[in-house]
Amino acid sequence: MERITNRATAVAPSLTLAITAKGNKMKAEGLDVVSFAAGEPDFNTPAYVIEKAKEALDKGVTKYTPSAGTLDLRKAIAAKLLKDNGLSYEPNQIVVSNGAKHSLYNACLALVNPGDEVLIPAPYWLTYPELVLLCGGVPMYMETSAAHDFKITPDELKKAITAKTKAVILNNPSNPTGTVYTEAELKALAAVIEKAGIYVIADEIYEELVYDGLKMYSIAAYSESLKKNTILVNGLSKAYAMTGWRVGYTASCKDLAEAMDNMQSHTTSNANSIAQYASVAALSDPAGVAFIKELKATFTRRRDLAVKLLSDAAPLSFVRPQGAFYVMVGMENLVGKSYAGKTIKSAADFSELLVDHAHVVTIPCESFGAPMYIRLSYAIADSQIEKGIGRIVEFAKRLV
Amino acid sequence: MERITNRATAVAPSLTLAITAKGNKMKAEGLDVVSFAAGEPDFNTPAYVIEKAKEALDKGVTKYTPSAGTLDLRKAIAAKLLKDNGLSYEPNQIVVSNGAKHSLYNACLALVNPGDEVLIPAPYWLTYPELVLLCGGVPMYMETSAAHDFKITPDELKKAITAKTKAVILNNPSNPTGTVYTEAELKALAAVIEKAGIYVIADEIYEELVYDGLKMYSIAAYSESLKKNTILVNGLSKAYAMTGWRVGYTASCKDLAEAMDNMQSHTTSNANSIAQYASVAALSDPAGVAFIKELKATFTRRRDLAVKLLSDAAPLSFVRPQGAFYVMVGMENLVGKSYAGKTIKSAADFSELLVDHAHVVTIPCESFGAPMYIRLSYAIADSQIEKGIGRIVEFAKRLV
Repeated sequence: MERITNRATAVAPSLTLAITAKGNKMKAEGLDVVSFAAGEPDFNTPAYVIEKAKEALDKGVTKYTPSAGTLDLRKAIAAKLLKDNGLSYEPNQIVVSNGAKHSLYNACLALVNPGDEVLIPAPYWLTYPELVLLCGGVPMYMETSAAHDFKITPDELKKAITAKTKAVILNNPSNPTGTVYTEAELKALAAVIEKAGIYVIADEIYEELVYDGLKMYSIAAYSESLKKNTILVNGLSKAYAMTGWRVGYTASCKDLAEAMDNMQSHTTSNANSIAQYASVAALSDPAGVAFIKELKATFTRRRDLAVKLLSDAAPLSFVRPQGAFYVMVGMENLVGKSYAGKTIKSAADFSELLVDHAHVVTIPCESFGAPMYIRLSYAIADSQIEKGIGRIVEFAKRLV
Repeated sequence: MERITNRATAVAPSLTLAITAKGNKMKAEGLDVVSFAAGEPDFNTPAYVIEKAKEALDKGVTKYTPSAGTLDLRKAIAAKLLKDNGLSYEPNQIVVSNGAKHSLYNACLALVNPGDEVLIPAPYWLTYPELVLLCGGVPMYMETSAAHDFKITPDELKKAITAKTKAVILNNPSNPTGTVYTEAELKALAAVIEKAGIYVIADEIYEELVYDGLKMYSIAAYSESLKKNTILVNGLSKAYAMTGWRVGYTASCKDLAEAMDNMQSHTTSNANSIAQYASVAALSDPAGVAFIKELKATFTRRRDLAVKLLSDAAPLSFVRPQGAFYVMVGMENLVGKSYAGKTIKSAADFSELLVDHAHVVTIPCESFGAPMYIRLSYAIADSQIEKGIGRIVEFAKRLV
């Protein structure tokens, strides 16, 4: 009998950890390193939320809550979904978890039986296939192209659906691509999904970060029958700079919510009680609107800055992002080039050269289904963006 | 294709929730209800921990931490395990999770392949079989008896081990029985386990709550080879009255720790960052010793009170607990008795009668593998214990 389970050994080791660790080590040694690895806003949690957490501590909100979350928080989430997304849910259709990642896992546990196929547009957030695999499912990747803004089309979706397809994971806005589907595009996809009778896991964690005047549209709003087959995933992490607090949630039909809550009650139980208490305020207090406005303005400015700096970056290419805080930089033109005895085969080699010789940390996208791209996060100071992209472009130009 | 996965529908619905909900409803209606359902200390988190959490909030400790927990916390846990349990672990052998329940789930995910058998002494905490089943494993129950203090013997263990046995789950002190194994008893079990080469999931969450001068012994201390096959599970919830904070951990060999961390990094990521910061203080500050001393003195007194009140409780029986904060009350003598048109078949019927007619909430132990027992938690005020057990005994005597 093998010591460690197949499911555990099948989890892909992180390509990016080694590069990030190397960058951190160099920083600790006093080197001037620019890191584009951030997966969280460089904002502190807003003061009004911090104050509510202290209130919770003073009031002794330190006991178990219901495993699906306090009624107050589930009510606040339902109110948010109605106000922002035009979606009507009862509190018992909401399950609060230890972050949106945990909500995605619960969704997969509830939907994906061994052998079920799950469609994942590529490039994708690297955790999606791992979650499907952990549930014994089969990730089925749908390739997209930079020329088409990394978007899937209704026709491509129709062709990808088989008798074994259980669900499609839609991440809108997308990490890593920054793609945002328009309402019309989502409605066209929704029509295909509804007709096929498959499920949607709609990851909307970057909802508040859409630019160019685009409006966020939730695919669950398409029809009652599609809403019945959708598990909407969202959380407090990105919109309220609360990544460390770990508060995510699902909204779904009651039967799916009960299934997820039952499993969660045995596997982790409730999210942190103090964080739940503070999250009610985060979602409900008018101060939240101003905070998100500032967050969005900052990331819009930085997106514009990154785009400007990358406009003249040949041999590198990029796709203009319209959401989240990432930009994908294509390095295909560097394949076959060599530096310091290393020949570039894909993004990981380029990322390694960049950290070693340009002191810039980037995320190679092999495990995001995009081996010819590196991902840059612009959740860092403008001056760092400027310095870092400058170094990347200069280094790339030197290679050709 | 069915809507919800087999794994989700296989999770047993909670028998106890309905009874607890009924009790809460009666309380809300103004009735004088005594509840023995508590699964957490009725203490607030100590002030020195609350202060540290506020410090974390002021310092902006609101970002992602490494998925296995901060280095500071893993160091503090390693120091605790060395000091209290004589066990030497490096920080990279510790994985911090969203509560000890989550740690148990990670342990099962790392050890239990589909078809693997896992030995579970009965009565057991109801979550163990659910976790094994979620991993596709087969829970194999080992019956124990009140006459033997609900303990398994080395001979019984030896007979229960088959070629398919992957692990045994040992909960010491035990929820629900309050059983505490002596060092000699654990060493005798350890010898059998080591010889068979199976794994141990050692759930020590009630470690600080042992009475009668008994000393806690960690089975991993038996030998290096047994330690290599042990996943020790513990957490902050019970010892520091931090149930709502959700901080649990495993200590194990590095290969198992890495497997658990890999999976956790994709399924939930880190436990709440503020709770982690406060937990370092909880474990390290000398104030913790005084807090635990008071906690233990209080529960010792209440254990004694409950035992005294149950001593003359025929037709009910009980087993004197030596740890945790539960006592099992046997109701076998009531089987076949009727009240208000309801005939008692097992504990659930008796519990239902108790809430309806004596206004006392108890936990029927069908789902704990002990259908002839109810579980009383004495994590409530002495006066409530007195009043509640008085009502239970009076009601039981009326039935015969």
